[in-house]
Amino acid sequence: MYSFKEKYGEYLASFEARLKKFYDELECKPAILDESLKYSLKSGGKRVRPVLMLASAELVGAKNCGIEDYALALELIHTYSLIHDDLPEMDNDDFRRGRPSNHKVYGAGNAVLAGDGLLNTAYYTLFERCADGKLYADAAKFMCDCAGVKGMIAGQSADLYCSEKNIKDGDMLDYIVKNKTGKLISAAVAVPAILAGGRYFLELRQFGEDLGRLFQLVDDILDEEGSFKNLGKTSGKDKQENKLTYVTFYGTDQCRVYADIMFDRCLRMLDGIEGDTSFMRDIVAFVRYREN
Amino acid sequence: MYSFKEKYGEYLASFEARLKKFYDELECKPAILDESLKYSLKSGGKRVRPVLMLASAELVGAKNCGIEDYALALELIHTYSLIHDDLPEMDNDDFRRGRPSNHKVYGAGNAVLAGDGLLNTAYYTLFERCADGKLYADAAKFMCDCAGVKGMIAGQSADLYCSEKNIKDGDMLDYIVKNKTGKLISAAVAVPAILAGGRYFLELRQFGEDLGRLFQLVDDILDEEGSFKNLGKTSGKDKQENKLTYVTFYGTDQCRVYADIMFDRCLRMLDGIEGDTSFMRDIVAFVRYREN
Repeated sequence: MYSFKEKYGEYLASFEARLKKFYDELECKPAILDESLKYSLKSGGKRVRPVLMLASAELVGAKNCGIEDYALALELIHTYSLIHDDLPEMDNDDFRRGRPSNHKVYGAGNAVLAGDGLLNTAYYTLFERCADGKLYADAAKFMCDCAGVKGMIAGQSADLYCSEKNIKDGDMLDYIVKNKTGKLISAAVAVPAILAGGRYFLELRQFGEDLGRLFQLVDDILDEEGSFKNLGKTSGKDKQENKLTYVTFYGTDQCRVYADIMFDRCLRMLDGIEGDTSFMRDIVAFVRYREN
Repeated sequence: MYSFKEKYGEYLASFEARLKKFYDELECKPAILDESLKYSLKSGGKRVRPVLMLASAELVGAKNCGIEDYALALELIHTYSLIHDDLPEMDNDDFRRGRPSNHKVYGAGNAVLAGDGLLNTAYYTLFERCADGKLYADAAKFMCDCAGVKGMIAGQSADLYCSEKNIKDGDMLDYIVKNKTGKLISAAVAVPAILAGGRYFLELRQFGEDLGRLFQLVDDILDEEGSFKNLGKTSGKDKQENKLTYVTFYGTDQCRVYADIMFDRCLRMLDGIEGDTSFMRDIVAFVRYREN
């Protein structure tokens, strides 16, 4: 019988196996580069993005095309973005996933390089797959676009800009969330669609963006209401620092309504996709109702 | 009649044309991301790496395989590395190529993102070529390896490590130069060899590493003896900061001897390559006898 928890565990185990192989094979010199790269990767987290990718690959039938490598690359990109985002000159966060952030342990200079190294290694992993043919290259290119200056980096830049200039604007907020959070989640679900020859690409890309909005809405609500114990990072920081977030802009009540709307939109999008979408539906609920 | 200056100008013009197309096509939001990316790219410099790549492509017969895209990617990678290297937590340089460094103009947070954005865009450019076939993917993978945690980033990390721990060690010095400077120059000359089906790959890779050493030797001598006017950056900084460089480790006189040895080695390596190597020879002399 299908159990969400079990299935999540299966995807997770298959991803962690790929990650372990990566740890074992990677040996950088000097040792501090090696350690700092692995420190942030090993901090874990829920691995939502790689799990989503493996699930989407099963749904669209893109299971035997090295999807684990794409999932690895995605997690490397996500982890690099957290390291750079936590830097003193960016969000200046001292904690991440319950542990001191990378720059608190290794210093800001090494943290910059750890992030650069993870990004570069992500793409090295993808270039290795590109030799297999055009679909592989197309999938890699799409992921790179999602992470880049029209994607995640644009979102981070807009976020920093609004912080520095104290801008409160709903369109900017949507631009930030769509790019900073939405694009990598979109990549998680739409890359398998490309590898499967384009099957449900548009649907899954849109699904990913909406799931990204839902993810951010819940994140912002948790930042307002959660505890350090649950979150593994300082809570209430957004308000304190007067950041532009869903909660500081719309208030918590409005956010819950908006989250319910996104929740429905995600499920409706899945209605249009053939095959067993149970796990995808459950992960939408997981994102909506999580406590950390 | 062949003239080095003219030929350099031709390669440069062809590269600048590709770069201009890149400027025109790239439009990032927010504007500060767009500006900060382009600011450092437009600072110019001698464009030695892309010029070397175009020359090497002509030598091995890899001219019609989109080599300008690889040259663009290489210059984007080089520029990102300068931006991150100049950051306060790294080398803390306020000037670069005669102008305030990126973080002095846009702030450290935006400089981190500008660097990230350039690196990501470099690989996007290469993923676009990967769809053309295996050789294209192999060439991209090699460049990525040269820039990565076994290449340039390893060199930067070792450099930072030696600075922080005040380590003076000849092997570490060679490791730093080989990776931080040598690998990208190696990529410049060896990527065309891959695109040409592997012709003279080993020779050109070694040539690139030695030319990198020569480049760094002259850089260190110029830092010791040059003026701000010639260099476009603060001179005498290495000694002041007690950095591990060729000059601080071996002294200027020994460096000149070492430079002459590398100069000869570069030329000898070219002896083994068929075709017209005049320009490559002249660029070795240019690197050896430049004043900035």
